[in-house]
Amino acid sequence: MKQNLLDDIQNLLLLGAGPSGVAPNTYHAMSRNVLGHLDPYFLKIMAEIKHGLRELFGTENKVTVPLSGTGSIGMEAAFVNVIEKGDKVLVLENGVFGNRMEDVASRLGAVVTKEEFEWGTPVVPARVKELLEQDHYKLVAIVHAETSTGVCNPVEEIGRMVHEAGSLYLVDCVTSLGGIPVEVDKWHADIAYSGTQKCLSCPPGAAPITFSDAAMQVIENRKTKVPNWYLDMNMLTHYWRGATRVYHHTAPISMMYGLYQALYNILEEGKENCFARHMAAHRRLVEGLERIGLELFVAPEFRLPDLNCIVVPEGITDKEIISELRDNYSISISAGLGPMAGKILRVGLMGYNATETNADRFVSALEEILRAHGCLAEKAA
Amino acid sequence: MKQNLLDDIQNLLLLGAGPSGVAPNTYHAMSRNVLGHLDPYFLKIMAEIKHGLRELFGTENKVTVPLSGTGSIGMEAAFVNVIEKGDKVLVLENGVFGNRMEDVASRLGAVVTKEEFEWGTPVVPARVKELLEQDHYKLVAIVHAETSTGVCNPVEEIGRMVHEAGSLYLVDCVTSLGGIPVEVDKWHADIAYSGTQKCLSCPPGAAPITFSDAAMQVIENRKTKVPNWYLDMNMLTHYWRGATRVYHHTAPISMMYGLYQALYNILEEGKENCFARHMAAHRRLVEGLERIGLELFVAPEFRLPDLNCIVVPEGITDKEIISELRDNYSISISAGLGPMAGKILRVGLMGYNATETNADRFVSALEEILRAHGCLAEKAA
Repeated sequence: MKQNLLDDIQNLLLLGAGPSGVAPNTYHAMSRNVLGHLDPYFLKIMAEIKHGLRELFGTENKVTVPLSGTGSIGMEAAFVNVIEKGDKVLVLENGVFGNRMEDVASRLGAVVTKEEFEWGTPVVPARVKELLEQDHYKLVAIVHAETSTGVCNPVEEIGRMVHEAGSLYLVDCVTSLGGIPVEVDKWHADIAYSGTQKCLSCPPGAAPITFSDAAMQVIENRKTKVPNWYLDMNMLTHYWRGATRVYHHTAPISMMYGLYQALYNILEEGKENCFARHMAAHRRLVEGLERIGLELFVAPEFRLPDLNCIVVPEGITDKEIISELRDNYSISISAGLGPMAGKILRVGLMGYNATETNADRFVSALEEILRAHGCLAEKAA
Repeated sequence: MKQNLLDDIQNLLLLGAGPSGVAPNTYHAMSRNVLGHLDPYFLKIMAEIKHGLRELFGTENKVTVPLSGTGSIGMEAAFVNVIEKGDKVLVLENGVFGNRMEDVASRLGAVVTKEEFEWGTPVVPARVKELLEQDHYKLVAIVHAETSTGVCNPVEEIGRMVHEAGSLYLVDCVTSLGGIPVEVDKWHADIAYSGTQKCLSCPPGAAPITFSDAAMQVIENRKTKVPNWYLDMNMLTHYWRGATRVYHHTAPISMMYGLYQALYNILEEGKENCFARHMAAHRRLVEGLERIGLELFVAPEFRLPDLNCIVVPEGITDKEIISELRDNYSISISAGLGPMAGKILRVGLMGYNATETNADRFVSALEEILRAHGCLAEKAA
């Protein structure tokens, strides 16, 4: 370690699928003096974090806490707490994160039925209705905002069906929380989780999660212990709730400060204003992309505002676009995942970076690159 | 969220069992601009982190990485990767963290033999020898530095026996790494893990771990998939190693910056100098405590320098001492855990805070409190 690499970190405009840009006061929060995880003042900060998360999740769930890991630990915690060997799970899949759910649940011994829907299109409620009539599932899982395709799934409509069918309902809100409305209670969702590094605009490292009373009852009445000590909600709740706080594991203090500030920022702006800002940035981006003749991967009515997938135009590769944006314009965007690799670009307008100015900056950089490669369509030239 | 609680965080001198004090440049590192988890510059930082961890762990293990969670996730990852249902595990227990090992392993279906040794004394190698002659274990687990009692276990001597017995050897180095010598390769340890918030002097939020080639072979040849997607080393290594980095989960970028800086600081000081500083602070603390007539819980030859357990003197409670230290002297120390609650105080001299000056500041504050409560012995009055 001869030179300190940290001194030369570039200030990139993060417009990828996450991590997203971080507000200056959230960066500052991350560098505040560390307190002990049982310090009385830290407990006050924890209380405010729970309050802020309930507000954004749209829930009154008592068990609403940030887990000590990045977004994916939310998915792990959701399944490992409620699933026991042999439990039937229905995964509604239309992207990478639906597939990951199948993998996570199967490893825990769940009997998983995965229903596939075309990538780039939403899950179809009518088909879900049929499936719920044919069999009973302990848990039905869906991704609200599919980060791999940019599709928003109809989670409210499906939630009503799952509720009627008497199954637990799990909704992945990684790329929705803080950017678009999330209404856990209204959707009848029993478990929902997110990550800090998307629309919350906090560095990655914590995973907000919420469990309904019904979900907690299932967890409390398990036949076997949760096969994951670190994520056992029966124990974690003793640390996050109640008069006497019992040490479970050391919470990531600085991440909690960052999350506190990020929630503070959103609630100070007003969550409706924050959602409107995301939508305005998205509209601006779409207008710009259409102006230069580019195609979006998802039909307008199913598009997420915060995660936009652009079809890679002819005559240039995704890798060329991504590296030229980074090296010549200091803009970071994401490639396609899995089967979408090489076919789409993923552009996030999340949290702090969800502004019309950033949408313009991106479109103008992209236009220059495409023009230099001679791959802009006639009408845009 | 009416006022910003972060503005009123006290600057406490953290002399508890962790989190420990953080150097100003490590705080600064935590607030550097976030990069993407696949950004080429971030990959360079990852490479240096692996290099620094190998140096401190005393290993050439290729798989030496920080996990995305706090210290306890290291224990979870160690067991969940190598254990399959029915595997025999021997846990050598002389404190809370040995007991936690039994819990973690049992939840994964391991058949655990827990051998108990008296708290405050080390594991006895002769007894381990007998146990290894009586049965064969897939894995033998021990805690190097038992954070609940302040005892240093003879991990090298036991390592030779475990190696000869042909078992995998797991050593918890949470409260040793960076504060006292850790020699994974010399000890024949197959798995060792730590946390950032002890002697590395970085905020909590990452768990360095190392796996020997033998351990990785066991993981690669499992009969069943690792029942924890988030911690599956088969997948995580594709992100942390090799020419093509495959996205697994979003790494906690800011924590990685903090860890990078913390490792940089230790290697710049020189690890031997760093260990000597811990030892000097410890000696100073012990001298001071003996001067005022206090008793240490552990016999001199088995004491950890970085985690000191003091027997709570007559005439005052641990809670009184802890809250007066915090409220009147801005010093944070820890209470006893589990059966030691109320009986001992735990005083950490870890990382950045391991100095003779801090030892003096603590002893002098403690002396004032005890004197005010009239509970200092005659000889010290």
